[in-house]
Amino acid sequence: MKRRRMGSGIRRLGLLLLGIVAGAQAFEPLPEKPIAPATNPTTPAKVALGKALYFDPRLSVDGSVSCNSCHNVMGGGEDGRSFSMGVRGQLGGRSSPTVWNAAFLSVQFWDGRAPSLEEQAKGPMINPVEMGNPDHAAVVKRLQGIEGYKPLFKQAFNAPQITIDRVAQAIAAYERTLITPDSSLDRYLKGDKKALNESQVRGMQAFQDVGCVACHSGAAFAGPALPEGQGFYQKLPTFPGSAYDAKYRLTEDTGRFQVTHQEADRHMFRVPTLRNVALTAPYFHNGSVPTLEEAVRVMAKAQLNKELDDGQVLDLTAFLGALTGTFPRQEMPQLPPTPGRTAFAP
Amino acid sequence: MKRRRMGSGIRRLGLLLLGIVAGAQAFEPLPEKPIAPATNPTTPAKVALGKALYFDPRLSVDGSVSCNSCHNVMGGGEDGRSFSMGVRGQLGGRSSPTVWNAAFLSVQFWDGRAPSLEEQAKGPMINPVEMGNPDHAAVVKRLQGIEGYKPLFKQAFNAPQITIDRVAQAIAAYERTLITPDSSLDRYLKGDKKALNESQVRGMQAFQDVGCVACHSGAAFAGPALPEGQGFYQKLPTFPGSAYDAKYRLTEDTGRFQVTHQEADRHMFRVPTLRNVALTAPYFHNGSVPTLEEAVRVMAKAQLNKELDDGQVLDLTAFLGALTGTFPRQEMPQLPPTPGRTAFAP
Repeated sequence: MKRRRMGSGIRRLGLLLLGIVAGAQAFEPLPEKPIAPATNPTTPAKVALGKALYFDPRLSVDGSVSCNSCHNVMGGGEDGRSFSMGVRGQLGGRSSPTVWNAAFLSVQFWDGRAPSLEEQAKGPMINPVEMGNPDHAAVVKRLQGIEGYKPLFKQAFNAPQITIDRVAQAIAAYERTLITPDSSLDRYLKGDKKALNESQVRGMQAFQDVGCVACHSGAAFAGPALPEGQGFYQKLPTFPGSAYDAKYRLTEDTGRFQVTHQEADRHMFRVPTLRNVALTAPYFHNGSVPTLEEAVRVMAKAQLNKELDDGQVLDLTAFLGALTGTFPRQEMPQLPPTPGRTAFAP
Repeated sequence: MKRRRMGSGIRRLGLLLLGIVAGAQAFEPLPEKPIAPATNPTTPAKVALGKALYFDPRLSVDGSVSCNSCHNVMGGGEDGRSFSMGVRGQLGGRSSPTVWNAAFLSVQFWDGRAPSLEEQAKGPMINPVEMGNPDHAAVVKRLQGIEGYKPLFKQAFNAPQITIDRVAQAIAAYERTLITPDSSLDRYLKGDKKALNESQVRGMQAFQDVGCVACHSGAAFAGPALPEGQGFYQKLPTFPGSAYDAKYRLTEDTGRFQVTHQEADRHMFRVPTLRNVALTAPYFHNGSVPTLEEAVRVMAKAQLNKELDDGQVLDLTAFLGALTGTFPRQEMPQLPPTPGRTAFAP
C-alpha cells in the first residue's frame, strides 16, 4: 500500500498543523441520545407508536410502501438503490439518506427543506412518487380507520385523536432512538487504541490533512452543531470541470436552489453524515457512485480539488469503515389490524 | 341480531347431528410446532439465516422486494392488497396467501404448484413480476457477493457454500416458526369456555351446520392432513351461476388447470387456511372480496349453494375472528452488509 503524499497549499498546511496539534481530538464520539425538542419529548409509548407507523405500509396510498421501504433499519437505514421506489414502481429523484443518526442533523432531506425529523416525516406521505397520498387528511383518515391505533395514540399523547402532527411526532420520536454508538472510532476516542488498525489511524489523519474534516466535522461528521432548522450546506461540485462531473452527473441537480430559488443555493446540498457511510452505497445525492473508494476520490477532487493516491484512498476508506456503529436490537412491531376488512381500497 | 334459520336437506341434517354429537370436538387446536421434513430439520442457526433472507430485499433483482414485502409478518402474513406488487411496480395475478401457519399446509400457492415450503420459496425469486431475477444462479451469485452471509450459511449448514436449495431450506425453516397458537378457539378447545362469546359459539355450530367444515377441516382449517405435496383442492365456484360470479370475477382464473392442464383441475384451488383469516382481507385468490362478512356470504353461495341470513353471517364472522392466534415476538434481523459497495447494480 502506498503512503499518502505530503500535501501543499496554505489551507492544507493549516489543516495539517491542526491535525498534528489536535490529532484525534478533532473528533467527537457519537452521543448515545439526541436531544428531543421540548415540543416532542421522547417517551416509550410514543416510540412504540412511531415504530408501528414507521413499518406500516398502510401509510402509503396503496399499502405498498412504508418508511422502512426506503429507510431500511435492518440495514444501513436506506435501500441500497440509487433512487428509491415509491408507489406504482415510481422512482424518486434523489437517493434515500440514512435514517440512522438523522436525529443529529439540524435539517433533513438532501436540500434541507425540512427543519426537523417531525417535518421530514410528513413529506414522503404526500409525495406523489413516494407514498402517494393526495393530502395529509387522507393519511389521518386511513389511520383513523385502523381501530388498533387509537389506544396507541392514547398512550402516546394522552388522547386518542389522530392528527398528522402526532403521526409525525411519533415517527420522529422513534427515529430519535435510531442511534449507532460504539463504532470503532468511538471506542478509539474513548481510549481503546486497538480499536483502529494502522490503515484506519492513517486514514483518520488523512481525513484531517486532506481537508474532509472541514465539512464533515462534529459527532455526526455532518458539520458543526447548528440550531434545528439551520442547515450546513456545501456546493457540489465546489470545483467543477473534472471528468467526474459528466461521469456522475454532478451538475444536473440544482439542489437547494429548488427550495429557495436563490442563486446562492444553486447546487448546494446538506452535508450528509458519514456515520455508517460504509453501509449506504451507492453514494451522493443521486446514488451515482457505486463504491466508497470512488466516492472518496470524487469528493476530494470535486470539493477540495485534490487527486488522492491509492494509499490515501485506501486509508480514508478504512477510516470511514471505522464509523460503522453498533445497531440496537429491535423487536418487530405488530401492526394494528382491521379485522375482517381492508384498511384501503386494495 | 337474527338467529340462524334451521336448515334442511339430508347433508345438512347429517352435519347438524354431527355438530350436536361432536360439538367442539369437530375442531382441533393448532399444534405449537409443525413437523419439519427429515431433509431439512429446523435449527436455530437455520432459522436465523432464513429470517435474514426473508427480510432481505436484495433477493429481488433491484433490491426493492423481499419475501416480507408481500407476506408481511408484522401483520397478517400478507399485504392487504388484492394483488401484490413486485419489482418495477408490477402486479401479480393472485392475492398473496398468508405465511402464518403455511407450514401446516401440504402444498403451497393457490394452485398448489409447490409441494413444500422449500419449493415455494424458490418461486417468487425468479418470477418476472415478483422478485424478477433471471434465474436462481443470479440469486446465488448475489448472495455470494454479500460476505456476511457466508458465516450464517456455515453455521446453518456446516458449510459456507451458498446454493439455492440452502437458501430455500433456510427460508422454509424460518417459516416453520411462523405459527400462531393460542387463538380464542384454541383456548376454548382446551377448556376455557369463556374464551368464545355467545355469537362465536353459535358461529362455531353454524360452521358445522352450514357445511364450511367439510372443506375447512383440520387444525389449520384447510382440509384433512395429507402427505406433503398432496393437495386438498376444491372447485371455485362449485355452484356457478350466482350474481357473485361476475361481481367478484369468480370464473376468470382457471386455477390449478394452469399447472396440470387437466380438465378436472379447471377452477380448482387449494383450500386456504382460515387461521387468522380476519387479518387477511381482501379475500379469495383474486382479492376481490373486501370484507370477511361478504366472503362468508359468497362462500356459502358459491360452494354450498346456500344463502345465509344476516345472523348466520355475523355469527360465522365472529367465529372466524376467534381463529386469530397469538403472534410470536420477533427480533428484527440485521441484514449482512456489503461495506463500501452495492450488492446489485442500483
